Amino acid sequence: MLPDWVYKKCAEVSAVHREAAIAQQAQLTKPTGALGRLEQLAIELAALQATEQPRAARVPIIIFAGDHGIVAQGVSAYPQAVTIAMMANFASGGAAISVLARELGSSLEVVDAGSLAEQEMPGIVTDKPRNGTRDFSVEAALTPEELAFAFETGRRAVARAEAHQPDLLIFGEMGIGNTTTSAAIAASLLGMSAEEIAGSGTGIDAAGRAHKARVIDAAVARHGVAGASPENILRAVGGLEIAAICGAIIAAAQRRIPVLIDGFIVSVAALAAVRLNPSCQPFLLPSHQSAEQGHRLVLRALNVQPLISLDLRLGEGSGAAIALPLVRSACALHNGMATFAQANVPDRPSGPAG
Amino acid sequence: MLPDWVYKKCAEVSAVHREAAIAQQAQLTKPTGALGRLEQLAIELAALQATEQPRAARVPIIIFAGDHGIVAQGVSAYPQAVTIAMMANFASGGAAISVLARELGSSLEVVDAGSLAEQEMPGIVTDKPRNGTRDFSVEAALTPEELAFAFETGRRAVARAEAHQPDLLIFGEMGIGNTTTSAAIAASLLGMSAEEIAGSGTGIDAAGRAHKARVIDAAVARHGVAGASPENILRAVGGLEIAAICGAIIAAAQRRIPVLIDGFIVSVAALAAVRLNPSCQPFLLPSHQSAEQGHRLVLRALNVQPLISLDLRLGEGSGAAIALPLVRSACALHNGMATFAQANVPDRPSGPAG
Repeated sequence: MLPDWVYKKCAEVSAVHREAAIAQQAQLTKPTGALGRLEQLAIELAALQATEQPRAARVPIIIFAGDHGIVAQGVSAYPQAVTIAMMANFASGGAAISVLARELGSSLEVVDAGSLAEQEMPGIVTDKPRNGTRDFSVEAALTPEELAFAFETGRRAVARAEAHQPDLLIFGEMGIGNTTTSAAIAASLLGMSAEEIAGSGTGIDAAGRAHKARVIDAAVARHGVAGASPENILRAVGGLEIAAICGAIIAAAQRRIPVLIDGFIVSVAALAAVRLNPSCQPFLLPSHQSAEQGHRLVLRALNVQPLISLDLRLGEGSGAAIALPLVRSACALHNGMATFAQANVPDRPSGPAG
Repeated sequence: MLPDWVYKKCAEVSAVHREAAIAQQAQLTKPTGALGRLEQLAIELAALQATEQPRAARVPIIIFAGDHGIVAQGVSAYPQAVTIAMMANFASGGAAISVLARELGSSLEVVDAGSLAEQEMPGIVTDKPRNGTRDFSVEAALTPEELAFAFETGRRAVARAEAHQPDLLIFGEMGIGNTTTSAAIAASLLGMSAEEIAGSGTGIDAAGRAHKARVIDAAVARHGVAGASPENILRAVGGLEIAAICGAIIAAAQRRIPVLIDGFIVSVAALAAVRLNPSCQPFLLPSHQSAEQGHRLVLRALNVQPLISLDLRLGEGSGAAIALPLVRSACALHNGMATFAQANVPDRPSGPAG
């Protein structure tokens, strides 16, 4: 149903470079382990990039946008027109992720993977099989062909980015209604009720959240996708931008490009990617723990421990972009610090400490 | 006992600019509150800097170094000579904080506030009343005059930095034995036992930590400083670099310069500063929660909630430097995002959300 490449094995993590990075960390002028999780991050990145000098300098940001038929059920605090308006805002530089991309020196590509836009928008790559998904409370969101197209959308975006030799990639998303879609996918993949996973999205209240959970649970039951294959779940209750990110993650990992995982929606796409092709898992790097209720559960299922937890719940890739400087610091420290020998600093005796 | 300026009122936080910043955040193209703690950070910074455009661009880093007589009691995993060796490493660019300063575009000044160095070291400002503190397990660490000198050391460093119009300041420390000194100060200020506060520092084991706690408790009892005035506590069990940071924090707040608080040792200096002059409290900005046991207790007493918790325990100002990009992101987003009106994005209806 999905293209063959989706199931092809991702790049091998380099055990040799991991060992070299561990040895390097032990020689740097600091107490062993004193840089905590930044040490682990540098070591993992060295292993993933198969290098002695892990890098997070060139980090293109790609936002995939899509609209969701499910918003007809009143699950979002914002009108559906916001998807297209925000796509224009990304392209013209006024959105949070636009500001962050400038700060980070990152390129920002916006891909219309399935919005309701009737025509091409300036500064935006249009690459979609249809305008918006169907309302999954009444029918399957996508056909098998539309789902396969969305995976190709993701792969094509990674191929464009690859030309600029990225060290990492950040994928973001925009789509009014997509926390509902993501919660439906997560509930189906994890075999949990929507009550445990659905959050307040852009800002619905408790009653709105309860309604959203009921809509999701009814749809999951209607399509019979609790515990089903990722392909069937994505077709029944998926979103075009989410499927594109799923494809993009696998395509990146196949090209040995680690991905800094953003918030709830991107994490759900990552979970679907890992279920489809487990060999992409090591290439998922942590960024943040969002305020969205289900994010913690999805990160746990991904075995990814977030670096920051600042009550962010914006999406757009903004959480990953905000966390990127931590990865850059980890790389700079790993590559730039002096060793005990170089700096002529006495290391502690190897015996028990006093 | 301390110089008069220590007790002078710090700058007023601008309520007008806080209100303006809150209003600005509400107009930016994102769901209300979706940038979580970064919104609060930008708002507080606008109020502290009394500006509509909070900034964290120019952030000099100043490291205060000192040696500690208490290391004679076997409380550290590293030999005392490491203090001077690391000062040289800071100056020659090989230490973690040197690497981070380069990454951040920050100047790095190293102040010998009381190391055992017999002569001036290249690239280091010498400004100390004596070489190292006395062993506080047998006598008071400092005389009143030496303590007052250390506060002036801090004030002079801030005055030098002020010439470059800093947006924020980061203070770091170096001193083998200074987690023991800091734990003694914190235990005295908070009226708690050292067992609750003393951590493993640069890496002592459980037996070493128990020994360290016993040494501290005995000294606090000997000097009778549990719950005493900050002046008496700093004199009895203090450190020259810690007292210098305490003075520097107050001097910065008096000049309306917020301080990004580093780890356990700097936080203890900040707690002493707040006890001496409560009006400096608003100028303490959070950075990280370290792996050092007592840090959580001290941050709670300071009413400062850390931004990151990555098991860092290096000191040198490194935790604050690693967190600085988060503050920069908060400023960039506050100042650079488009409003709903500017971007022509529909804001949600003001009624209850659906």
